[in-house]
Amino acid sequence: MKLIRNIILFALCSLCVPFSRADEGMWLFNNPPYKILQDKYHFQPTAAWLDHLQKASVRFNSGGSGSFVSADGLVMTNHHVGADCLQKISTQEKDYMKTGFEARSGAEEPKCVDLELNVLMSIEDVTARVTAAVTPGMSSADAEKTRRAVINEIEKESRDKTGLRSNVITLYNGGQYHLYRYKRYTDVRLVFAPQKAIAFFGGDPDNFEYPRYDLDICFFRVYENNQPVHVEHFLKWSEAGAAEGDLIFVSGNPGRTERLDTMAHLEYQRDLAVPGTLNLLRRREILLKNYSDRSTENARRAEDELFGIQNSRKAYLGMLGGLQDPAVMEKKSSMEKSLRDKVGGDAKLQQAYGDGWDQVAATLKTLVKIRDEYNLISYGPAKRAQAFNSELFDTAMTLLRLAQESPKPNNERLREFSEANLEPLKLQLFSEAPIYDDLETVKLADSLGLMMEVMGADNDLVKKVLAGKSPRDRATELVHGTKLKDVAVRKQLAEGGMKAIDASNDPMIGLAKLIDPPARRIRQTYEQQVDEPQRQAYGKIANARFAVYGSSVYPDATFTLRLAFGEAKGYTEAGQKIPWATTMGGTYEHATAHENKEPFELPAIWKERKAKLNLSTPFNFVNTADIIGGNSGSPVVNRAGELVGIIFDGNIQSLVLDYIYTDQESRAVAVHSAGILEALRKVYSAERLVGELTGKK
Amino acid sequence: MKLIRNIILFALCSLCVPFSRADEGMWLFNNPPYKILQDKYHFQPTAAWLDHLQKASVRFNSGGSGSFVSADGLVMTNHHVGADCLQKISTQEKDYMKTGFEARSGAEEPKCVDLELNVLMSIEDVTARVTAAVTPGMSSADAEKTRRAVINEIEKESRDKTGLRSNVITLYNGGQYHLYRYKRYTDVRLVFAPQKAIAFFGGDPDNFEYPRYDLDICFFRVYENNQPVHVEHFLKWSEAGAAEGDLIFVSGNPGRTERLDTMAHLEYQRDLAVPGTLNLLRRREILLKNYSDRSTENARRAEDELFGIQNSRKAYLGMLGGLQDPAVMEKKSSMEKSLRDKVGGDAKLQQAYGDGWDQVAATLKTLVKIRDEYNLISYGPAKRAQAFNSELFDTAMTLLRLAQESPKPNNERLREFSEANLEPLKLQLFSEAPIYDDLETVKLADSLGLMMEVMGADNDLVKKVLAGKSPRDRATELVHGTKLKDVAVRKQLAEGGMKAIDASNDPMIGLAKLIDPPARRIRQTYEQQVDEPQRQAYGKIANARFAVYGSSVYPDATFTLRLAFGEAKGYTEAGQKIPWATTMGGTYEHATAHENKEPFELPAIWKERKAKLNLSTPFNFVNTADIIGGNSGSPVVNRAGELVGIIFDGNIQSLVLDYIYTDQESRAVAVHSAGILEALRKVYSAERLVGELTGKK
Repeated sequence: MKLIRNIILFALCSLCVPFSRADEGMWLFNNPPYKILQDKYHFQPTAAWLDHLQKASVRFNSGGSGSFVSADGLVMTNHHVGADCLQKISTQEKDYMKTGFEARSGAEEPKCVDLELNVLMSIEDVTARVTAAVTPGMSSADAEKTRRAVINEIEKESRDKTGLRSNVITLYNGGQYHLYRYKRYTDVRLVFAPQKAIAFFGGDPDNFEYPRYDLDICFFRVYENNQPVHVEHFLKWSEAGAAEGDLIFVSGNPGRTERLDTMAHLEYQRDLAVPGTLNLLRRREILLKNYSDRSTENARRAEDELFGIQNSRKAYLGMLGGLQDPAVMEKKSSMEKSLRDKVGGDAKLQQAYGDGWDQVAATLKTLVKIRDEYNLISYGPAKRAQAFNSELFDTAMTLLRLAQESPKPNNERLREFSEANLEPLKLQLFSEAPIYDDLETVKLADSLGLMMEVMGADNDLVKKVLAGKSPRDRATELVHGTKLKDVAVRKQLAEGGMKAIDASNDPMIGLAKLIDPPARRIRQTYEQQVDEPQRQAYGKIANARFAVYGSSVYPDATFTLRLAFGEAKGYTEAGQKIPWATTMGGTYEHATAHENKEPFELPAIWKERKAKLNLSTPFNFVNTADIIGGNSGSPVVNRAGELVGIIFDGNIQSLVLDYIYTDQESRAVAVHSAGILEALRKVYSAERLVGELTGKK
Repeated sequence: MKLIRNIILFALCSLCVPFSRADEGMWLFNNPPYKILQDKYHFQPTAAWLDHLQKASVRFNSGGSGSFVSADGLVMTNHHVGADCLQKISTQEKDYMKTGFEARSGAEEPKCVDLELNVLMSIEDVTARVTAAVTPGMSSADAEKTRRAVINEIEKESRDKTGLRSNVITLYNGGQYHLYRYKRYTDVRLVFAPQKAIAFFGGDPDNFEYPRYDLDICFFRVYENNQPVHVEHFLKWSEAGAAEGDLIFVSGNPGRTERLDTMAHLEYQRDLAVPGTLNLLRRREILLKNYSDRSTENARRAEDELFGIQNSRKAYLGMLGGLQDPAVMEKKSSMEKSLRDKVGGDAKLQQAYGDGWDQVAATLKTLVKIRDEYNLISYGPAKRAQAFNSELFDTAMTLLRLAQESPKPNNERLREFSEANLEPLKLQLFSEAPIYDDLETVKLADSLGLMMEVMGADNDLVKKVLAGKSPRDRATELVHGTKLKDVAVRKQLAEGGMKAIDASNDPMIGLAKLIDPPARRIRQTYEQQVDEPQRQAYGKIANARFAVYGSSVYPDATFTLRLAFGEAKGYTEAGQKIPWATTMGGTYEHATAHENKEPFELPAIWKERKAKLNLSTPFNFVNTADIIGGNSGSPVVNRAGELVGIIFDGNIQSLVLDYIYTDQESRAVAVHSAGILEALRKVYSAERLVGELTGKK
């Protein structure tokens, strides 16, 4: 499970008021669920307990979570989160995904090429300053510009003052704005990875399933000044790990949920957004699968990207299943009605917030009209243009806009080019991650074909983009003609500014110049006519919710640090009791049941060392914590704050969590800390690592 | 390569007039290319030569071609054509796809469950009678009814008179109507099949590729009255087989081409039809792939269907590539312009036929409006409703309509229920082919979801179909509730007529009753407002073409018997010479180059017996004959009418043939008759079969 959202088709626990006694919520560290924890678990986290967990938690820019697990900067995450680095530092001859990796000394720890880790150091509520800037009566266009200006300003001030990465986070879809300050780490080195065959044992068929048997872990070490960092906050390893019924906490970065979305918004998701995304995912999955099937080297090159697509496809299918389930939609509808009735029954609330829902609906009507063009060509932060599915095109666009935006005052720049955001952007822009011409060509050709299909062969922009050639021929020409694979060329162009860009005859830069004006126009339309009014509308709804239900409301997930909690606990599915944990012995039975065929084929060393293992050691376990894609790699800790496991998936029933919480059958799935140690000791004989984790070096 | 259409993105041979000296054409047996054969090859087929080849050729109702290869009714086709039968008679314990099969005596030959073979006995031109019935000034609705009536009548008369299967075939998209009479064989038994691992060696990655190394063959025997039939016309086996440069002929049933389509029609294909089909194919491919990945038994159940989908997806991608290539479209455009200019330059032609092109364009405007609903729910001959992807639903619809149509006069019935068509229809309806509840549920749930996506969750019909449930729950309820898996139940309902249908409380029959009225309405709209006017318009264009270019024009493919010709000949690709044939030794090298990993893993017996083989024996070879999906299994014969090979694929460059012929790089791919014998003798020791093929029993 990676950074994506989900849902599915199961009977839901009753949830007639937003906050039940269930283990619900992805809570802000500056607004934790004290009362629920006290009432249900008689546990009151201290400020120190929270601060320690917060600062031991790590965010991966590749889309997941992790935690410090030693004083010497050792970080644990999931294998499928670390895979981004594994993929980028592997070659045909040296394939870490296949063989796994273990550094027997610090000198053997290879550096990841563009991995950035973030540790959340502080949170500051800046809602008042952001919302004060946008005054009533402002046009949407002015409001968008003003809001962007104040956010760019707040971030720059903070970064100048503290030196920390500073991001203003939009919470409650626009209800609040908090300033998050992060310590950035960019020298991250690989310490240990198991073979993918055990890390992702069961492959796509077992993904989002339980019972499960995956060693989905990976260890990195954070360096500064070429030395391992010494960190004050790291999680103590619990050798015994979680036990059935234990209260556990999950500290990680859930990527995105849509629980506060209006019904109109959910219907838009159901009827257009999710089906559209699924069509694109299926298209890309088949494209990459076909490319991969042609040779083992092709398969290696596309491996991590293909996994990400298959993972998303499975998650979105689950989400759509939920949206298409009348039981889910009726529940959501009754929750909305309940809140709107309460607002409608209070003249002051009605006056202030009553039109929020209709305003959201209005923005969606605009979105429906512009969405094809927006999806295909708009290019922005975390938004790639679907018509140009190419690393090299992205590089060209970034170089062009860097040249355009850098001379502007900070407050007027596009968000991703503001001063506070330039460092992370440049880390990616100058990444030495390998780019493969053949894969680039296949992807770009297909996406140019998509553009032709959706916008029409006679569309002027399509004609200019294709320059009289077929998508395949044009993609070949662009990929083979560009020099942007060379990082030195990128740096020259970045340093040379607009003059260097204008002097360049690189065909990919030429394409970026062609696309930039219409891409900016459609982005501006989206930001001014969809995003900004949506923020304002959801701001009203959020305030209405606070007014009616009080301040103990958690916001939708935003890939920022959250605290979830729950119990290590099995469930009943179709009358069958599903146990809270699996054992290492079960792994071998699961392989046998699938004839030991890939992806159910265990690595040779696992077969050889079976006799050494205590087969009854817990391997994977489930719990009721409220998680979603992005939580991958999140530490699971006990009351004492000790690490008892690591989240790596949700079961198929958990896909509903995108829209609504349930703990009836939905579960988070974790690797158990005892199972990890058993594997490291008996299968891998990884003494150095085990010593560091257990403090017995 | 199966019954589907294609295209791709390569430089085309010049083809400025419709009929060049190239080896072009899928010729009618009653209008063979005498002049071209004489001029280019100095060969003049006699009537007897043609008659023999025609009657030795066999059509498979599962979508391919074949030929008699012994006097005792032995038929050879491709493994991937025979796979339909192999799949249906296999079980978890006895998987012929995996293990292959050899009958060591007639008693060991198992019967296929619903395979029908057709041998073309005669052709009669009935254009005058069909077109005379439809008088000028008739409304489209009346014209459609009248045309249907006269065709039903001609077929019934012919069947009553001759006892043969009688089909009126629409040629030149409506320019001519010919009555084809077939001998039907429905007792077809399996004689020999190799393992799929060698029949489809290289799998999806190698599909539509060359060089190639596939033993894509399968042998059946035709029985009547429980005895092998004795046939007068069968092909003599050439032990030496084709040699480089030989003139060869291909006699088979190409499924469909669009060479006579107008530009407006091709643009419709490019912009809507083909992208839409590809989205559906990708969706179904991923659905079945995921189902298959869960267990080996799942994979077995879905195997043949998944192959068909992947095969189509690859073909359609190639077709779309061609349609999106300006070079192809400009060539087609200039051909259309040339004909239209000639018509426009002759007042009489212009008066009679000049509006044909605009009339086609007008029908497409209608089609654009109705296509979503038509695709989703219309149900007719060779047209399944995309919203109900289920064998059991199809069975229910057929039973319902059989009850509705049977009491009507023959001339008024829907085409597939006319008296002449009932026998083939009932063969399918009462098929004992296995139906798997889990696979049915997965497919139906997905297609109900598609209906909801396209028609909208609030659509009345969608609501009625789903009955307040999610697609998944509704599919489960329907599949588990219906009794139609039981052939005896189907027979009872078929015999009981409308009374039995009305008395039935089977939920799938209930769904069919709900869908039938709107499905008939949209089908009628299509037949009256799209199909009938298109026939009339294309009739004009065909006559214009005859008037300008003479009668030596072949019609588009219609899955009826055609004669193609060409040379056994290699080609040059990207400067590299691709040899005309591969060798059996090359098979082993190809396996090694792909690390002997599935789908490049040879069956054990091929590895064991490698030393016995003459590794220089030709295995697969290419030729310039004009073929397309549906030609799979077509015999390749030499001047003497001897069998020198069997078509099983086209190379990737041949995918363009759907729209335009080229022989620059495009090639048909065949298994060589010498390679087949070598494998049967040395690998399989199939003495009985070899004796029968070579006449040396």
